[in-house]
Amino acid sequence: MRTRAAVALEAGKPLEVMEVELDGPKAGEVLVEIKATGLCHTDEFTRSGDDPEGIFPAILGHEGAGVVLEVGEGVTTLKPGDHVIPLYTPECRECASCLSGKTNLCTAIRNTQGKGLMPDGTTRFKMLDGTPIHHYMGCSTFANHTVMPEIALAKVREDAPFDKICYIGCGVTTGIGAVINTAGVEIGSTAAVFGLGGIGLNVIQGLRMAGCDKIIGVDLNDDKAEMAKKFGMTHFVNPSKVDNTVQAIVDLTKTEKDHLGGVDYSFDATGNVKVMRDALECSHRGWGVSVIIGVAPAGAEISTRPFQLVTGRVWKGTAFGGAKGRTDVPKFVDWYMDGKIEIDSMITHKLTLDEINHGFELMHKGESIRAVVEF
Amino acid sequence: MRTRAAVALEAGKPLEVMEVELDGPKAGEVLVEIKATGLCHTDEFTRSGDDPEGIFPAILGHEGAGVVLEVGEGVTTLKPGDHVIPLYTPECRECASCLSGKTNLCTAIRNTQGKGLMPDGTTRFKMLDGTPIHHYMGCSTFANHTVMPEIALAKVREDAPFDKICYIGCGVTTGIGAVINTAGVEIGSTAAVFGLGGIGLNVIQGLRMAGCDKIIGVDLNDDKAEMAKKFGMTHFVNPSKVDNTVQAIVDLTKTEKDHLGGVDYSFDATGNVKVMRDALECSHRGWGVSVIIGVAPAGAEISTRPFQLVTGRVWKGTAFGGAKGRTDVPKFVDWYMDGKIEIDSMITHKLTLDEINHGFELMHKGESIRAVVEF
Ligand SMILES: [Zn+2]
Ligand SMILES: [Zn+2]
Ligand SMILES: [Zn+2]
Ligand SMILES: [Zn+2]
Repeated sequence: MRTRAAVALEAGKPLEVMEVELDGPKAGEVLVEIKATGLCHTDEFTRSGDDPEGIFPAILGHEGAGVVLEVGEGVTTLKPGDHVIPLYTPECRECASCLSGKTNLCTAIRNTQGKGLMPDGTTRFKMLDGTPIHHYMGCSTFANHTVMPEIALAKVREDAPFDKICYIGCGVTTGIGAVINTAGVEIGSTAAVFGLGGIGLNVIQGLRMAGCDKIIGVDLNDDKAEMAKKFGMTHFVNPSKVDNTVQAIVDLTKTEKDHLGGVDYSFDATGNVKVMRDALECSHRGWGVSVIIGVAPAGAEISTRPFQLVTGRVWKGTAFGGAKGRTDVPKFVDWYMDGKIEIDSMITHKLTLDEINHGFELMHKGESIRAVVEF
Repeated sequence: MRTRAAVALEAGKPLEVMEVELDGPKAGEVLVEIKATGLCHTDEFTRSGDDPEGIFPAILGHEGAGVVLEVGEGVTTLKPGDHVIPLYTPECRECASCLSGKTNLCTAIRNTQGKGLMPDGTTRFKMLDGTPIHHYMGCSTFANHTVMPEIALAKVREDAPFDKICYIGCGVTTGIGAVINTAGVEIGSTAAVFGLGGIGLNVIQGLRMAGCDKIIGVDLNDDKAEMAKKFGMTHFVNPSKVDNTVQAIVDLTKTEKDHLGGVDYSFDATGNVKVMRDALECSHRGWGVSVIIGVAPAGAEISTRPFQLVTGRVWKGTAFGGAKGRTDVPKFVDWYMDGKIEIDSMITHKLTLDEINHGFELMHKGESIRAVVEF
């Protein structure tokens, strides 16, 4: 079939919207009509050429929602008409990682997905001249139609609006999941969130859901504070306005009973390795847990004195918020429909596919929290 | 009273055995007759002058066992005749850290202890000319008698031999505790232990107690392998004999079901920050936990790509094996008496106090696992 897609022809160039050829689903695969897709920083990381593992030409996009049109041979858990959210972290429920019960990082199709290919080692997309077009993060939601493995689709309820729940395909789940799955934040905790963009806001709402007492937001831009407060931030620190960011956070958490100070949990949503260090070091001696969410530039390294860990801090990271996609994403959609999760106010811009490059401009200018393309 | 002690008069000099003055216990303090004390690398770190926080003159030693001779005002949990193990990590059961239930790092007397003083800010030891002598790690077990806070003494059973259980005051608890308290190793796990000295051997026996399936020892010295095997090591890697230590460990843990490989748990018992990185990176994607035990040189920093954490590895550290001294140390002594913990074969040398400097020579030559001074 033919479908319309925004194609990344080469690194650093704007996407080009065009007709492309799409082969039907092979065994274990599903044809999905994408109804809406968010524009995420990771798409831009690859489009811009900063991603050393970027492959071109490709159809980017990994934060979508849509409807199943057709299923390939052997597909048993989905049927035409089902509403789905594509998963860049699949859940096969059979690999050593899935069966460990300790991680969401399914390895069933990891090798081919990393190469921009379907599990059989080929692409479903091609140019009208026959040139293959690579898949992206196993999703390629910047196309009106895409083909995905059955294990990389979460079936969700049919009354949920596509233009909102697409955000659950990445940002919402990453932020909230980091709090509830990776950090395991308990009621009454204190926390610091570095970076108040889309991920940071979702971390903050996760902390509010988890019952945090103090939620300290950290950002160089004072303008970010207002929105963050609406999501649950209780205190704000602007690193450019204090002598020492770590000390400022420690001071905010000292109490009469606890003269040491430090947050129980901290989260880096900046991708800056120096900030990741601050996030670790502002966490509480003895039990502080610091979670890295942001994606660092190629080659960047985190560092600290081992004494920080020997005195009880724990350094960890999260991918897709530790969420098992097929199991947890439908639950997140329910929570959104129940009003437990706020999404609407974060979808600041709606675009058509033809306007997609404008969406990346909005991202660069910091004007959008999330821009969503509707088909 | 007067007692005999090995005094560190200045950094880098041999200890000098001499008579010193010891004041009796003040309120909340206890006079202990030390019966035996181990010589630990941390004592040597300070004696040698490598420890930037070393204070002189001081009576070193923190791995002892002895008998209560006299208790100060208000002491309720100990009485003369009780057998005790000194704790460099006290357990007050009242500070924010103790009450958190999340850490063993009691802060009740942290500030004065770090300055070589008793909680009231003075020393109990002095030279015969009246010069104060500093305490060390709150213990000073290189003296035939010492005074310690009640909260820094674990009461233990009276049938346990002092010359063995003194080792529970540091090395045994640090190694085994890192496994069972800090890492929380489960039966059937795989693990790697970097550094097969005294701490490493105790990590290995902890892993055996926890029911590990594969216990991979890593050391530059092939001679260390034999003893480690006796404690439970199942595989040995000598980094000087493989191209890539991380890869060698990953290869040892790959299975038909798990093509990724990597250990579930890893432990650094070397204090070398490069080794700490290898320990992290040889742990399993998705769930590997790496624990830093070794003390790094002043100013040294650990580093890695954040991707290592984002893909599910956890970096943590341990002090005194995460053990709550007054609660856990008596249990460790029971385990030794029950034959669950092996200690005897690790006490390779017995010395008199006058021979204490010879003990540090044995340590440097790698000839001892533990040298113990008996009074
Ligand atoms: Zn994303
Ligand atoms: Zn899987
Ligand atoms: Zn020690
Ligand atoms: Zn305490």
